[in-house]
Amino acid sequence: MNSKTDSREKMIEAASKLFQLKGYHATGLNEILKESHAPKGSLYYYFPEGKEELALAAIELAGNIIKSKVTASLSRYDAPAAAIKEVIKDMKTGLEEAGRLENVSISLLALETNLTSQVLLEACKKSFTDLEEIYAGKLIEGGIPEKTARELGVVIQSMIEGAITISITKKDTAPLTAVSNQVSLLLGHYLSD
Amino acid sequence: MNSKTDSREKMIEAASKLFQLKGYHATGLNEILKESHAPKGSLYYYFPEGKEELALAAIELAGNIIKSKVTASLSRYDAPAAAIKEVIKDMKTGLEEAGRLENVSISLLALETNLTSQVLLEACKKSFTDLEEIYAGKLIEGGIPEKTARELGVVIQSMIEGAITISITKKDTAPLTAVSNQVSLLLGHYLSD
Repeated sequence: MNSKTDSREKMIEAASKLFQLKGYHATGLNEILKESHAPKGSLYYYFPEGKEELALAAIELAGNIIKSKVTASLSRYDAPAAAIKEVIKDMKTGLEEAGRLENVSISLLALETNLTSQVLLEACKKSFTDLEEIYAGKLIEGGIPEKTARELGVVIQSMIEGAITISITKKDTAPLTAVSNQVSLLLGHYLSD
Repeated sequence: MNSKTDSREKMIEAASKLFQLKGYHATGLNEILKESHAPKGSLYYYFPEGKEELALAAIELAGNIIKSKVTASLSRYDAPAAAIKEVIKDMKTGLEEAGRLENVSISLLALETNLTSQVLLEACKKSFTDLEEIYAGKLIEGGIPEKTARELGVVIQSMIEGAITISITKKDTAPLTAVSNQVSLLLGHYLSD
């Protein structure tokens, strides 16, 4: 990686971190520059359209990291219920160790950009849909018919996303534990693992 | 209601609306004054500590409205699964008609204030906990043992909260429909209605 690409990547990483933690509106461009240690002129050089363009790259980065983490956790077990419990366990560990949302959820950005930026909202939508499809894929591999698996993928992603929001609010991961406990029962209707 | 109380209430209502839709950071005090048609001096008269104090009243108002709506929907059916499906149906109608989050979810405020305001975070936590307890209460009435009902209350609240976030992002209430479909199966483990 040359130093030019490096500045660009560092800016995206800093933006992704700050947007996920503090939100889009509360994060100033100066703060992103400071966090990334990138030269001041480089922001509009790499992102001529400014904050929204940088945020798009930041959401894509966060979405890809979250997807990779979920895929890695799922791959540790063949049985879908055990695999999904592993995803939740890893998220709990992440939240407990970091005490914050970074690379766990883009819900804040999705809710914030809901009325202000169609471009950013589309990127958030893609991230949610990708995760639903990853869960559905695991269920299909485990023998659940496609239509049911797709609906369950949406429900699992909803449960996890909501439990993350509530866990962060309570500073307690009990909601993720509760979801993990009930996921086996829900999937038990459709498979035996 | 006299005109003084009226100004205060109007300011809280305007703040609640704007904070829920645009978020805490993106909403300026001038915008709240404009929306509420309250006289300029009245803001610091009623809320001497400013934006955070106003936001606390706004979160409490939104939390109470959401709780009342959930309680009203639940009361339409004795059977817990049917009652919870009714809650989700009413939320879907609300989102579809208004196309926005107002008085449906305080997730945006909870995620936004996570790192910035302990006072506001506590108010959001109380709102989530109240809803979990309302769901748990309905399940206990329906015959589910208390400990299980409490865990299910947390899971139901997580599922609904996550599905609202994803529905808003997709501008499509299919995630709420999926949760509604699966809630009966989940509760079917514990009761027969």
